[in-house]
Formats: sequence, C-alpha cells, structure tokens
Amino acid sequence: MREVFQQELQDVQERLTEIAGLVESAITRATQAFSDSDVALAEEVIADDAKIDEAANSLDEIAIDILARQAPVARDLRVVVTALRVSSSLERMGDMAEHIAQLARQRFPEKVVPKGLRGTFKQMGAHDVAMSQKLTRLLATEDIALAAEIRDEDDAVDELHASVFDFVLGETWKGNPIDTVDATLASRYHERFADHAVSIAKKVEYLATGDWAGASSVTV
Amino acid sequence: MREVFQQELQDVQERLTEIAGLVESAITRATQAFSDSDVALAEEVIADDAKIDEAANSLDEIAIDILARQAPVARDLRVVVTALRVSSSLERMGDMAEHIAQLARQRFPEKVVPKGLRGTFKQMGAHDVAMSQKLTRLLATEDIALAAEIRDEDDAVDELHASVFDFVLGETWKGNPIDTVDATLASRYHERFADHAVSIAKKVEYLATGDWAGASSVTV
Repeated sequence: MREVFQQELQDVQERLTEIAGLVESAITRATQAFSDSDVALAEEVIADDAKIDEAANSLDEIAIDILARQAPVARDLRVVVTALRVSSSLERMGDMAEHIAQLARQRFPEKVVPKGLRGTFKQMGAHDVAMSQKLTRLLATEDIALAAEIRDEDDAVDELHASVFDFVLGETWKGNPIDTVDATLASRYHERFADHAVSIAKKVEYLATGDWAGASSVTV
Repeated sequence: MREVFQQELQDVQERLTEIAGLVESAITRATQAFSDSDVALAEEVIADDAKIDEAANSLDEIAIDILARQAPVARDLRVVVTALRVSSSLERMGDMAEHIAQLARQRFPEKVVPKGLRGTFKQMGAHDVAMSQKLTRLLATEDIALAAEIRDEDDAVDELHASVFDFVLGETWKGNPIDTVDATLASRYHERFADHAVSIAKKVEYLATGDWAGASSVTV
C-alpha cells in the first residue's frame, strides 16, 4: 500500500514537471512571437493553452483521487495539497503566456511594442523563460538551490517592470495610447508570470525544509 | 463522528462567508476611494488586506486538518477541496481591491481616472460591489439563482472593460500616458475581480448540481 502510494506521489510529481514543461514551451514561444511579431507562432501558443488546462485538470483529478483512496496525513497530505496549488499556478502561468501571445496577434502586422521598449521586453521575456526552465528543473529534481535563483530572476523582472512605467511616464515617451496600453498590459503579464513561478518555488522549498503549512498556504 | 464532520463543514462554510464579507467590504471601500480620491479610505483597504490573507490561510489550515482527521470521500471530499479553491480566489479578489486602492493612493491628490471615464468606472465598481454582495449571500445560502445573477453582472463588467479600451484608443481621448496606464490597470483589476467571483459562483453551482469534478477543477 505504502509503495503504491509513493508511486502515485511520483506520478503526481512527473505530471507537474510535464505541465511545467508545457508552460516553458508556451512562454518561450510567446515571448518570441511578441518580439518578432510572429502571428503564426502566437496562434500556436493560444491554441496550445487548452493542453495546459487539460493537463492541470487531469492532475487535479488524480490528486483528489489519491486523497480519497489513500487518506494521506502529515507531510504526504501537504504534498498532495501543494500539488493542487502548484497546478493552479502553472495553469495561470500558461494563461499569462497566452495573453502575451494574444497581444502580439492583436497588433499584427504592427509591432506590439514600440522601439524604445523592445530591449526591456526582450530582457523581461528572457528572465521569464529562464525562470520557467528553472521551475521545470526544480519540480523534476527538488534541487532547492534553484528556488533562490528563481527569486533572483524575479527581482530582475520587478525592476524591469518598474522601468517600463518610468519610461512610459517619462518625458521622452512618444508612444500613442495604444502603445501605452500594450506596454502596460505586456509588462503586467510578464510580471505576473514571474510571481507565479516564485510562488511555486517557495512552496517546493517549504516542503523540502519542513514548513508544510507554508507549502500549502494560499498566499503568493 | 459524522455529526462532528458536518459541523466542521459548516464551520468551513461560515468562514468562507466571513472572508467573502471582508472582500465585499474591501471592494466597496476601494471603489469609493478610487472614485472620490479618498486616500485615507484607500490606506484602510490596503492595511486590511492582511486580514483577508490571514483568514484565508486559517481556513486552509482547517480544511487540511479536516482532510487529515476525517479522510472524507466523494462529495464531502469535493466540498473540502472546493473550499481551498474558493479561499484562494477570495484572497485574489482581496488583492484586486487592494490594487484599486493603491492606484487611488498613488495618484492622490490627483484624481486617478480622468473625466471621460469616471462614469464607466463608477459602473464597473458598482457591478463589482454587487457581485461581491451576491457572492457572500451565495456562500451563506447556497441559493444558486445568485450564481446566474453573478454571471450577468460579469457580462456587464466585460462590456465596460472593452469600452474603456475603445475609449482610450479612440480619437477623442485626450489623456496623457499616466491616465492611459491608470485606466488600463484599473480596468484590468475590476475585470479580474469579477472573473474570480464568477469562478467561485460556478464552483458552488457545480457542487449543488452534482458536477463534483467541475467544482474542484482548476480553471477559471
């Protein structure tokens, strides 16, 4: 019984890693579609979001089934509840990638972000992609050194996010309202993506360090 | 044992209703602070968000404790897992109210939203408040007629959200970049608040109609 249970927990972990891989692919293509105004790639990301949602829902059903059949307690219970939280955050990360792709599609054939901000968004996108890669590895290996790296990347994203607003509200900004709206939303989506990655990393870290309540808590 | 369990589930429901009441108070004051540029009221909402977070975390601990001690199955298990989902959405609704209050505070003593959009935001705010009131009642009474009303309110919010962008991107828009940024973010926060309310309403409805998987699923 115990062995079956451990195998089931491993299955949950593998599925979370798989979903994180789908998210990684989504943000990689979304940020590329965004900077290159590649509408075909954007369409792909948008279409593929349903796969992330389905994978997250399947994972949830499996986790709930484990709760019903195995009635885990203590740390094991925290692991399963944390899996539900992580799947929910991954699903939202997929949505953020989709939103970034939608912005690229909406403005096509125009570039979605005006010249002065392209470098900033390239950097934000690169950080989001790097965080996502690290998150997949963190979920696969539980190497919690990655959690600290993810937090560092997030600090960089937060700074870039603030710099977007400084730029848009500065005197040299020549964008029209549509540019301002796009920059605002794009920056927000990139930043929220990063927030969710940090939230997941913290939960994995809590579980590893024994702060089970922190692992399954609600706050980002 | 069974009786104790039913009492515990009732406690969970009462706590969710209580958190929904805190969210209702937050959005009521946030939207008022937003339209009246009432910085003291905005500060209050911002300070009070911690209470919502704490209440959501306490609820989560209680729900996890119920899972550990009672090992519920079937519908009872779905009720507890759904409570975790609902508490997470309520916590995010509180964050959206806080964000709206933060916008009001940031721009003080200026008005946060320029003249041409004040009516629109008043309406959006009124719908968010109405949804929030209905949500509290829905959680207290499980009267699922309220779920349909919440969806209708959300349709109205979506239309207003679209109209903000039509206006900001239209030819008559005279706002400067800061106005455009504020309008974009404020509209997004109001819309996300409404989305979370719909997500919760659907889950309560699913539970009531027997679609247990829908009740505890991850997607908004």
